[in-house]
Amino acid sequence: MSESDLLARIIPMFGESPFAGSGVLVAPGDDAAVITARESVVVTTDSMVRGRDWRDDWSSGHDVGLKVVAQNVADVAAMGAVATGLLVSVAADPETELDWVIDLTRGIADAAEDAGCPVVGGDLSSAPAGVIMVAVTAFGDLQGRMPVLRSGARPGDVVAVAGSLGWSGAGLALYEAGTTDPIAPNAGAGHLTAMERATSVLMWFHRSPRPPWESGPVAADAGATSMIDLSDGLVRDGGRIAVASGVELALDEAQLREHFLAGPIELAVGTDVGWRQVLSGGEEHSLLATFPADAVPDDPHAPWTVIGQVVEAGPQGPRLTVGGAVPSVTGWDHFAG
Amino acid sequence: MSESDLLARIIPMFGESPFAGSGVLVAPGDDAAVITARESVVVTTDSMVRGRDWRDDWSSGHDVGLKVVAQNVADVAAMGAVATGLLVSVAADPETELDWVIDLTRGIADAAEDAGCPVVGGDLSSAPAGVIMVAVTAFGDLQGRMPVLRSGARPGDVVAVAGSLGWSGAGLALYEAGTTDPIAPNAGAGHLTAMERATSVLMWFHRSPRPPWESGPVAADAGATSMIDLSDGLVRDGGRIAVASGVELALDEAQLREHFLAGPIELAVGTDVGWRQVLSGGEEHSLLATFPADAVPDDPHAPWTVIGQVVEAGPQGPRLTVGGAVPSVTGWDHFAG
Repeated sequence: MSESDLLARIIPMFGESPFAGSGVLVAPGDDAAVITARESVVVTTDSMVRGRDWRDDWSSGHDVGLKVVAQNVADVAAMGAVATGLLVSVAADPETELDWVIDLTRGIADAAEDAGCPVVGGDLSSAPAGVIMVAVTAFGDLQGRMPVLRSGARPGDVVAVAGSLGWSGAGLALYEAGTTDPIAPNAGAGHLTAMERATSVLMWFHRSPRPPWESGPVAADAGATSMIDLSDGLVRDGGRIAVASGVELALDEAQLREHFLAGPIELAVGTDVGWRQVLSGGEEHSLLATFPADAVPDDPHAPWTVIGQVVEAGPQGPRLTVGGAVPSVTGWDHFAG
Repeated sequence: MSESDLLARIIPMFGESPFAGSGVLVAPGDDAAVITARESVVVTTDSMVRGRDWRDDWSSGHDVGLKVVAQNVADVAAMGAVATGLLVSVAADPETELDWVIDLTRGIADAAEDAGCPVVGGDLSSAPAGVIMVAVTAFGDLQGRMPVLRSGARPGDVVAVAGSLGWSGAGLALYEAGTTDPIAPNAGAGHLTAMERATSVLMWFHRSPRPPWESGPVAADAGATSMIDLSDGLVRDGGRIAVASGVELALDEAQLREHFLAGPIELAVGTDVGWRQVLSGGEEHSLLATFPADAVPDDPHAPWTVIGQVVEAGPQGPRLTVGGAVPSVTGWDHFAG
């Protein structure tokens, strides 16, 4: 199948959604796309590589498509913006099965529709045997808001999370332990135990996270002083806010255990593994933000759970602490990983 | 070396250029970058894969950096826009030599400075052994112009080219024939013959093309009715204008031979190979446009050479002809390639 033939199959899949065309002045098919903008555009890129960021025996093409879009939309949301468009770049072994590519495309299109932002263009290239890489660039509109940076946290603010913590990491731990998803494609849900349900939801979340991206603009409107999307774990990404802002993020261990460890994680992987995942599990893409104490939003999309305070940096400099101590876990390093 | 350490080495290289910061509201280091815009943004993406789009024994990291930026800026130019920012996504085998990555980064930074558009962000991920992929997204500003599409060519227009034809393809043919660049890094130019000079210039152009991207906005201002950047060869890309516009592009064989075959190409690879490269050589990234006959611009950046006429599509439908016949050569297909 030639590049032209493949593109002829793929491109219409992005045009079937009712939102296609909104804000898109020039759609796929020319040298470049043209999207509407006002004053500024938020831009970000994130990619997934087969064998590194997903395994074919765990994730379908559809899962990969959902996940790579979710990662990018979460980055846009973490600035306080709404995603307005996506570019998709795929480099694939020419022997890749067409069905897989179609499934990937459907996952990308489904996530794009969920996020309300059209796929406006892309690029297809060939890669060495066995290699597939999917790179997505997302564009966002601040709709008049100031961007929420990592550097604005101030002593007196509270630290809050929208979305889950550690689900993706716990799901990965389950996969790595050889666990089979209790809701296998051909098995049916049947009569699952609570532990089986918990196991399945974590494995599902690892394959295709759905971050609360609608909460980014809500946080910005409420007066968030800093925000980040949790791609490398709470400790590592929270530490980035601490360093960029020159403060200490003093997290409350009891709050974290009560709101984020109790539930599916503790049930499925136990207290010790679960606690480590709450602190350092990667690829969650939930939003971590700081707010003036009276400004935590009542968010229609996801609750913002207060998990700590911003305090003056002590003699050790900017850092993140949990229960007053620096956690021994770090976080996810894509390049060492 | 960790991801953080590597990024700490790379990111400052994009900030050393004097242009950094212009139009960039939020620079690399946050979840996303924010660039200024007015009304619309042109967006495009193009990538290069080691072993597919370059060979390490032919191209340095610096060459790859120059080329991947040039491809993207040419796409922006072909809409009539000026490039305003770049995102760079690199997926690399963690064993990749640091020197190579630094050299790539320098190439990207040099081309970005040449094009006047800052690198505003990016993404670094690990890839399987031996794999390196570089994906670039470029943003552009139409500065109030209407985008120049592929679909606007009208009977009576003339067809013109800014930049060279077939140089990159002829350079590739020289590499594939086992030719050594007469100006090898450690050899010095010395007393080269005309043929050696021609050989070297084509091989250099294949490694790191410099398209006349400044000519895109000039063409738009002059009233270009359609435009495309020549990434897959004159016949294939010109055919795209013909199909999108529903016309025939009737190219003049004598003009093409006189202006584009004569010179370095004919000298270095001969008439037959050279003519095939003029018609179908890929990765040139010169601009092909159509203009009302009296509107071909007097371009300070590159001459626009008239190479044919736009005529009504005949019974065979929209097509490109050279000397009245459909050329037997086709063009470059990245996915079959």
